[in-house]
Amino acid sequence: MPEQSYNVVTLIRKKRDGKTLSESEISWLIRAYTDDKVPDYQMSSFLMACYLNGLNTEEAAYLTRSMLHSGIVVDLSDTEGLKVDKHSTGGVGDKLSLILAPIVASCGVPVPMISGRGLGHTGGTLDKLESIPGFTVDVDLERYKEILKKQNLVLVGQTEEIAPADKRLYALRDVTATVESIPLIAGSIMSKKLAEGIDALVLDVKFGSGAFMKKHEDAAELAKTLVGIGEEFGKQTIAYLTNMEQPLGYAVGNWLEVKESIECLNGEGPEDVMEITHLLAGTMIYLGKRADSVEEGIKMSRIAVEDGSALNKWIDIVEEQGGDINVVKDPASYPEADVIEDVKSERSGYVTEMDAFALGMVSVELGAGRKAKEDNVDPRAGFVLKKKIGDKIEKGETIATLHTNKKEMLDTAKKGIVEAITIRDIEPKPLRRITHRVDMDGIHDYDG
Amino acid sequence: MPEQSYNVVTLIRKKRDGKTLSESEISWLIRAYTDDKVPDYQMSSFLMACYLNGLNTEEAAYLTRSMLHSGIVVDLSDTEGLKVDKHSTGGVGDKLSLILAPIVASCGVPVPMISGRGLGHTGGTLDKLESIPGFTVDVDLERYKEILKKQNLVLVGQTEEIAPADKRLYALRDVTATVESIPLIAGSIMSKKLAEGIDALVLDVKFGSGAFMKKHEDAAELAKTLVGIGEEFGKQTIAYLTNMEQPLGYAVGNWLEVKESIECLNGEGPEDVMEITHLLAGTMIYLGKRADSVEEGIKMSRIAVEDGSALNKWIDIVEEQGGDINVVKDPASYPEADVIEDVKSERSGYVTEMDAFALGMVSVELGAGRKAKEDNVDPRAGFVLKKKIGDKIEKGETIATLHTNKKEMLDTAKKGIVEAITIRDIEPKPLRRITHRVDMDGIHDYDG
Repeated sequence: MPEQSYNVVTLIRKKRDGKTLSESEISWLIRAYTDDKVPDYQMSSFLMACYLNGLNTEEAAYLTRSMLHSGIVVDLSDTEGLKVDKHSTGGVGDKLSLILAPIVASCGVPVPMISGRGLGHTGGTLDKLESIPGFTVDVDLERYKEILKKQNLVLVGQTEEIAPADKRLYALRDVTATVESIPLIAGSIMSKKLAEGIDALVLDVKFGSGAFMKKHEDAAELAKTLVGIGEEFGKQTIAYLTNMEQPLGYAVGNWLEVKESIECLNGEGPEDVMEITHLLAGTMIYLGKRADSVEEGIKMSRIAVEDGSALNKWIDIVEEQGGDINVVKDPASYPEADVIEDVKSERSGYVTEMDAFALGMVSVELGAGRKAKEDNVDPRAGFVLKKKIGDKIEKGETIATLHTNKKEMLDTAKKGIVEAITIRDIEPKPLRRITHRVDMDGIHDYDG
Repeated sequence: MPEQSYNVVTLIRKKRDGKTLSESEISWLIRAYTDDKVPDYQMSSFLMACYLNGLNTEEAAYLTRSMLHSGIVVDLSDTEGLKVDKHSTGGVGDKLSLILAPIVASCGVPVPMISGRGLGHTGGTLDKLESIPGFTVDVDLERYKEILKKQNLVLVGQTEEIAPADKRLYALRDVTATVESIPLIAGSIMSKKLAEGIDALVLDVKFGSGAFMKKHEDAAELAKTLVGIGEEFGKQTIAYLTNMEQPLGYAVGNWLEVKESIECLNGEGPEDVMEITHLLAGTMIYLGKRADSVEEGIKMSRIAVEDGSALNKWIDIVEEQGGDINVVKDPASYPEADVIEDVKSERSGYVTEMDAFALGMVSVELGAGRKAKEDNVDPRAGFVLKKKIGDKIEKGETIATLHTNKKEMLDTAKKGIVEAITIRDIEPKPLRRITHRVDMDGIHDYDG
């Protein structure tokens, strides 16, 4: 089909003036940008216009399609079964992928998982995986398919062939204050996930201080947009809205989170982590048609942890991708950070609130995250909470333990932890960990 | 004063979220952009946020100050008297600068005029001046001051030293659909004018089909912003809102407009051109304190034309800046375009409407203007109207005469002229040429 050509200033003006762009216009623009025919400074002006004037669901789907087709859609027909992935919008201490991926794979559903790196207050699955000595996340598409076929699971980074337009656009949005736009976020997520070769998708859309979307209503809007795009592409998509007012689990930091994940696979995981893990895993097993319902999927997920098959799958994939399985089998053998120090509570009471964003930034200061893309992360840095919201604490009791190789940041980090955690006399009411399910039929209250 | 440093993404986000920026923030941003520390793609995102969320008068003044101080503010103390300039927001057939500058200078008020080139449907003073063989508009600041001191008048182009930040920003706005923003336009105009070394300024803010601002209310808003910025800088500034529903005068095109200007200085100018010229010139003479009122200034302006002193000043400045005074003294000696053809009216009636924008574009097609910055203009191309709004015309009578060296464009141009001019049976009511005066006291109805 010969494609129509457009004047880029006219398209920017159209979005600037609040008009709706056609599929042909969006497709041309994204292609011209990817082909270096439209420069960054025009695209960033367009992105700001999209940010401020919005995109409707059709426009978001056109954008997704354009970015998806800027690269390869992987053909995973080599591997039998319906391939299902999970995507999280990111949070502090969110190590769920590391736990649910081996669970779901061990239950017979292939999981082709392409993840990202951490930036800002949230960590990234790739950085966590790379904290395991030798673990490689950089593989080509042939090897990606081979690992999936052999292990029913693959955990890698985005290759150049996957949605290159999104990669460029994301990098541009990051430096032009155009990241936090629901349709742009949705297009970015879905173009990458659809490119993996999946048949269905589960989404963990987080809200709260440690999430990308602070407000519940924004998270709900994003979930609806994501599910709507999935529907446009004929992929069954189920999203859950989950609470990110405090870190997930206790550990924050790359290796510290891997270690906590191994505890989870050993059946010793924190309650909040396991509740959401089993729900997401169960939904994936259901969408992969290995269970007749989400409930049955959850049961299978629990059994996979109890009988050790998930942990075995985890050991298999670590070995397959070149990682040292000894640290998985014996986490205590992993070298610790130079400085490990406790932070003590300055008062007694109940932990009533956490500023999860601030806690995420503390882990960055300790060396666990990136302020800029080119920064290196320290696999050993981070912290382990000793208390969560609702827990009772005494003055002088340890509230968290810091791990760092940057001794000079210790005081700032301690202060950061103390300031980010509110302690009051009255016990808070329990947080709702999962508030809603969003699927093709709409948004539904979730009551466990 | 050591200047604070900012994170550019934070500043973009602030404007994106509709907040107000401080003087220090705007000043840092403009300086960092000019120093190549902020790339185009961040600035264009910021500009789109400014376009959509606006800037208040203080922010517009900060922007003006930052752009002004990105370059030199010329010191004109060498020349005695209050220096006064005029700026027009641009229109079709707007040759007023060529007429009023020598008038005002001949009345004893120094006029340091730095002008621009034409782009799009409007012509530029520099292109008109350069249609005079030998006339040079590219001079350095020393020569600029020298000419002004000697002639009480100087007519040149923007040098690199004048508001370089504006030059870069304007070029970026042009390709990112962020031109038509009142505070950005106002900042751009005022930074350049203030850099000239003026003491006072008269503004001709046009509205209507041939103007930059089509709507009267937008023109009024722009005039108020411009006068407000002038006030912030302690420069007396008076603006008039003038009608650009049809070209000014009859001639459109570089040399054709110079020729019409010479007719004006010879006392044979069209009524509309002379009415606005005398008003603007009279106001300049008043602001330059050579008259006690605008009315007295207007009288002096009329006399300067009648007694030939304005024409003599025009001949002097043409000679001073290297131009051929023979074509000024004998315009008929100027070489004509290869093709000169009349456009005939297809019906009888009254001219009731003109699409001045479309007429401007016809002159561009004939070779008189630029579609892109790098295009050359043809000094001889353009057209001369034979009728204006309100005039009676017979079928077959000439409505305009085309001048061009692009024979191939003749049919398109003829069609363009016919389509741009509406002829009906009923005589239209006369246009109000000047509707309002805007000064430091506010906006006032203008009744001549």
